Amino acid sequence: MIKTEVIPLGTSSATPTRERWLSATALQRGGRILLFDCAEATQFRLMAAGLSPARIDTVLITHLHGDHFFGLPGLLTSLSLNHRKEPLTIVGPRPLANVLTQIPGLGVDELSFTLHFVELESGEGRRTVVETPDFTVEARPIQHRVPAWGYRFQEQTLPGNLDAERARGLGATEHEQFRRLKSGSDITLSDGRIIRSADVVSPPAPGASFAYVFDTRPCDQGVQLAREADLVYHDATFASEHAERAVRTGHSTAAEAARVAADAGARKLLLGHFSARYQSTDILVREARRVFENSHAAEELKRVLVRQV
Amino acid sequence: MIKTEVIPLGTSSATPTRERWLSATALQRGGRILLFDCAEATQFRLMAAGLSPARIDTVLITHLHGDHFFGLPGLLTSLSLNHRKEPLTIVGPRPLANVLTQIPGLGVDELSFTLHFVELESGEGRRTVVETPDFTVEARPIQHRVPAWGYRFQEQTLPGNLDAERARGLGATEHEQFRRLKSGSDITLSDGRIIRSADVVSPPAPGASFAYVFDTRPCDQGVQLAREADLVYHDATFASEHAERAVRTGHSTAAEAARVAADAGARKLLLGHFSARYQSTDILVREARRVFENSHAAEELKRVLVRQV
Repeated sequence: MIKTEVIPLGTSSATPTRERWLSATALQRGGRILLFDCAEATQFRLMAAGLSPARIDTVLITHLHGDHFFGLPGLLTSLSLNHRKEPLTIVGPRPLANVLTQIPGLGVDELSFTLHFVELESGEGRRTVVETPDFTVEARPIQHRVPAWGYRFQEQTLPGNLDAERARGLGATEHEQFRRLKSGSDITLSDGRIIRSADVVSPPAPGASFAYVFDTRPCDQGVQLAREADLVYHDATFASEHAERAVRTGHSTAAEAARVAADAGARKLLLGHFSARYQSTDILVREARRVFENSHAAEELKRVLVRQV
Repeated sequence: MIKTEVIPLGTSSATPTRERWLSATALQRGGRILLFDCAEATQFRLMAAGLSPARIDTVLITHLHGDHFFGLPGLLTSLSLNHRKEPLTIVGPRPLANVLTQIPGLGVDELSFTLHFVELESGEGRRTVVETPDFTVEARPIQHRVPAWGYRFQEQTLPGNLDAERARGLGATEHEQFRRLKSGSDITLSDGRIIRSADVVSPPAPGASFAYVFDTRPCDQGVQLAREADLVYHDATFASEHAERAVRTGHSTAAEAARVAADAGARKLLLGHFSARYQSTDILVREARRVFENSHAAEELKRVLVRQV
């Protein structure tokens, strides 16, 4: 049983408040962590959430505004002081690698582990930036004041389950027969009868999916990232009263985030990156729900289940 | 009445713990703030301490290890987002200016205010790095694994108080006579009598002083910084059981810090930069007090009075 969950480590935009920290979000799956954005103090927030930084495999940075990546130097330094050996992948816009590696302590050969950079270029389109046997992460350019990318985590499609009892009832007996049925092939028994895979194997199920769409105006690429996703976590900096300000600053209103989720046919929407002017997020949730019912405000360190399979 | 106090914003060495943050210390005097070191999350710690970052005039960085300056980018960005106009002085080892200004968002003309850098060069000796009508700050090279400087905040000497009643009793009547007595001059009255300044004016008093001596081995320059200081805040990373480790890593034991305070004739010692291995600082305080009685462990956000005049 593999659980995929998302833990917001900071839900404020731009400057922190007494209650809200800056942008960083952990996706935890099978004990490993993908980190989306890494604002200042992320290593402290991981500690507060009970998540070990040692379990991070990949950090994905959306854009080079400080409130999305100023926590990287401290996180990398602490990993090194704790003698990390596994390489760490960092995905983000160029020139992130240069910016980081010229900081004292982060130079080549200064860390205890290897940094593997995947840099995104301005003007680049959709690209798969992480690929493992279990999941992929896709990046797409979104619309902010500086080059910015949204990400979609997608578990591989899960093969259907073989109903072994039923297959036996239809005459299958050998290991190789079960294997072929499970892989989708029909088999012919020695007496000529045919067992069709579709009759004994449930249809393949799409794996868990999560879209992280920060910082951005509502846009088509955001919709593509969120397409039928289990969970979409979208920029919702403002309420509609500040719709014009959202346009000017390259952010979204909660209602615009909800429209993206609705157009994408997503299952659930998480609102985040709140302007410090909203002490309560009630108005944002209210406005989002008028467009997309299953909308929720991200809460500091409150875990959100993406899927359990 | 001007109060000078010191607020430790983080007392841990190298990596944070659940209870202790990284190196940063505010000195507050007359509503303005000097910040000594600025580790990651310092802006959050200032907020937790109820100190407005807008009131910081100068940031003094001891050395370019991440746990002493990785909070600068976030602090500067937040000051700019809050439309700071006053210039900010940053004192620290070269190449701090280059390191900072090449970070996206911190380039020349990207901030709302001017950064005034005072850079210290390897091999440089004692130097006055801040000079105002009210106080100075002096830097001296100390002994760490990389070039490092300790700092001494020193209020200007306070002129003595004139006992006006006594001066009148001795025959002084005119404003000019009182002024000259207060400034240290003796005066001759019209009848030939002399009033001596020393008889009616109390001796000048040295202003408040604070020495910040991080990260370092115990050393003569540290003693010079701490000379007769009201308060010395000194590297006390280890207990004596790890004296050898202190040598190897360029830090001090609590007893060594106490020896510096004793040799300097300081009034009070604050121990800090604790290794994460000490859940309680009792052993450090105990060992320090054997050498220098008025030793105390720095506590997170707990204000320490330097002087009230």
